[in-house]
Amino acid sequence: MPKKKILPVAVVGSGMIKFGELFSMSFEDMIVEAYKKCLRSVDKGIDEEEIEAAWLGITFGSLIRRESVTGASLAEPLGLLPKPVTRVENACASGSDAVRNAAFAVAAGIYDCVLVVGVEKMRDVPSQDSLIAQMGISQHLWWHPRGSTAPSLFGQFATSHMKEYGTKREHLAMIAVKNHANGAKNPLSHFQMKITLEQALNAPMVSWPLGLYDCCPTTDGAAAVILVRAEMAKRYTDKPLYFLGTGLATDTMFTHWKKSYTSWPAAASAAEEAYEMAGIGPKDVDVAEVHDCFTITELISYEDLGFCKKGEGGKFIEEGRSHLDGEVAVNSSGGLKSKGHPIGATGVAQIYELWEQLKEEAGERQVKNAQIGLTHNLGGSGSIVCVNIFGTEPR
Amino acid sequence: MPKKKILPVAVVGSGMIKFGELFSMSFEDMIVEAYKKCLRSVDKGIDEEEIEAAWLGITFGSLIRRESVTGASLAEPLGLLPKPVTRVENACASGSDAVRNAAFAVAAGIYDCVLVVGVEKMRDVPSQDSLIAQMGISQHLWWHPRGSTAPSLFGQFATSHMKEYGTKREHLAMIAVKNHANGAKNPLSHFQMKITLEQALNAPMVSWPLGLYDCCPTTDGAAAVILVRAEMAKRYTDKPLYFLGTGLATDTMFTHWKKSYTSWPAAASAAEEAYEMAGIGPKDVDVAEVHDCFTITELISYEDLGFCKKGEGGKFIEEGRSHLDGEVAVNSSGGLKSKGHPIGATGVAQIYELWEQLKEEAGERQVKNAQIGLTHNLGGSGSIVCVNIFGTEPR
Repeated sequence: MPKKKILPVAVVGSGMIKFGELFSMSFEDMIVEAYKKCLRSVDKGIDEEEIEAAWLGITFGSLIRRESVTGASLAEPLGLLPKPVTRVENACASGSDAVRNAAFAVAAGIYDCVLVVGVEKMRDVPSQDSLIAQMGISQHLWWHPRGSTAPSLFGQFATSHMKEYGTKREHLAMIAVKNHANGAKNPLSHFQMKITLEQALNAPMVSWPLGLYDCCPTTDGAAAVILVRAEMAKRYTDKPLYFLGTGLATDTMFTHWKKSYTSWPAAASAAEEAYEMAGIGPKDVDVAEVHDCFTITELISYEDLGFCKKGEGGKFIEEGRSHLDGEVAVNSSGGLKSKGHPIGATGVAQIYELWEQLKEEAGERQVKNAQIGLTHNLGGSGSIVCVNIFGTEPR
Repeated sequence: MPKKKILPVAVVGSGMIKFGELFSMSFEDMIVEAYKKCLRSVDKGIDEEEIEAAWLGITFGSLIRRESVTGASLAEPLGLLPKPVTRVENACASGSDAVRNAAFAVAAGIYDCVLVVGVEKMRDVPSQDSLIAQMGISQHLWWHPRGSTAPSLFGQFATSHMKEYGTKREHLAMIAVKNHANGAKNPLSHFQMKITLEQALNAPMVSWPLGLYDCCPTTDGAAAVILVRAEMAKRYTDKPLYFLGTGLATDTMFTHWKKSYTSWPAAASAAEEAYEMAGIGPKDVDVAEVHDCFTITELISYEDLGFCKKGEGGKFIEEGRSHLDGEVAVNSSGGLKSKGHPIGATGVAQIYELWEQLKEEAGERQVKNAQIGLTHNLGGSGSIVCVNIFGTEPR
């Protein structure tokens, strides 16, 4: 019998800036504002000096501007010098994995109180090329899928799922409609507009079967959380989020090496590790922030996370089971689709949504009786997935 | 009184490949060979399946070849899929900080046995430009020190130390002579040749007062360590290295913002955190791998680490106190100067040297009665420093 793993860690503060095209804000402006909002979110107050260490989640280092972003790039603008700061980079899952590593340090008893900031400045550089091309993965190698873009890579999963399980473009559109409706209720979302099923279905095609509204935007943003030892949590707030479980898993990066085009095995592995640590199952999750970089990613993730059976993702959205009043409210924040996807910030911003939901502070988009929340953060075409689980009560 | 922090973690295996200009080896070749050597180094054997998670230390992602290196970039070539792998990037201190984070996960009781690999492929791309320019730090900003190179940045520290404390070029040359002599005894070192004081002093000038032999080379390489829970260590070897303490600290990145040009405050902070956790002081250290990217870095680090008083670094090397038979053997491996400095690999390779020294397997360069070893890994012009301490006995 495997030993019981526990994370005696809690979230006692979280902040995020309004996501969008933030040409007027520097890298420093974004992280400082997210940090200040995070400090102010601590109900009973916190002295900055209590923060002993930090983790930074960022992928591009804002592409051209700062290729060599380090822990010091966070510590200096925030006035944390000389405190220790680790930079974690794990493609689109960087933010979640930064939180995971920070939690390990607290659970190990090394630090009582730590900060995690996720950030990405993506709009300063025009999208001359695809995201994949900008990331420059192995482009000189003979087997590199030349011309591939993120929509083309994820589009292959959509066509496979359609062929295998009868999923329709309407199912994908329903996810876009749901997430835009949720985002319209989120003042920090990049987009705040509802769309109709017809708009989604008739939008310009990007890469079949993914149309414009099946794709998340390119967004600037930053988010932050403060983690403390669980037994200290009530000093800071009467409603902490207890960190119940975390899981990270890897898979082959390139589609031509993948064994399945209708699931991401790393998501199932990461979820299994996190569920086991949390001592819960998928049916216990009330609210989930799922990595909907494309609508098909959310649909397949319903299955990978165990919210429904394999192949039933289409039915799951069709029956409204992932709506705000459904079995599990998925992407109540608007998700990457509507809230935006500043890569390194995403995993941390997902926790910000749980912070609002589990404390019943989510306003118009509040999910009733939300007690257990999950974040699912997928990167590198499904080669890296991190799942984190939080609850209103400690395990 | 601050609480006692402990790291119940031990190193039970370590391997590194021969450092050098490895044009014939791919990124994958390098990490696979380091991993295999690491597995074979475990005295009583280890089943690969026992490794539950891994951390990857890498900075450039091999510059042009793979800009978006993730945990999956390690997991796939090593056959670790779907295990969790975190990529840590913290400039030249990436390798040490990856080990620090891995140790936290083990100390937290999440994993019993983890792997850390550090790697950098630096020679595939010709040095068309300086390392600093290739890293592209904030080059578009008005205050960026245009034209700056690593030798020019570190040269400023040398001239300041000479002016303030009467340090001479001869002192720097003595460090080069020592480290080349040590490297000549290390079969895995990039350079394996002794040099004379005259050669060092008469070598071509790179950036005053740093000549060719004051600068470390550009090197390809990889190194690996296996960490387990301390109480399990004897299952794998009768001579584990117990992880006694770790410290990380940050400082301002650019020289025009630094308060001192004769020390790196982050080194003192990181050392303080590590010494306190280890329950030791500088005088207890028998063997130290110090980040001698330039000879002046080693000289100042004698002072920052507390091996001698401020300003006495020149005297320290002149009196032979950092030689193999000195008070503390510094860079018995040859250091970055002679062994080479594949950025992400360096902090892990420093631990490999301690693995050989503390187990008394260092052959010709064996330090007598080496029981406590320290690694000092400095990055981003001193803006990130990580110090790790190991011993033959648990704390």
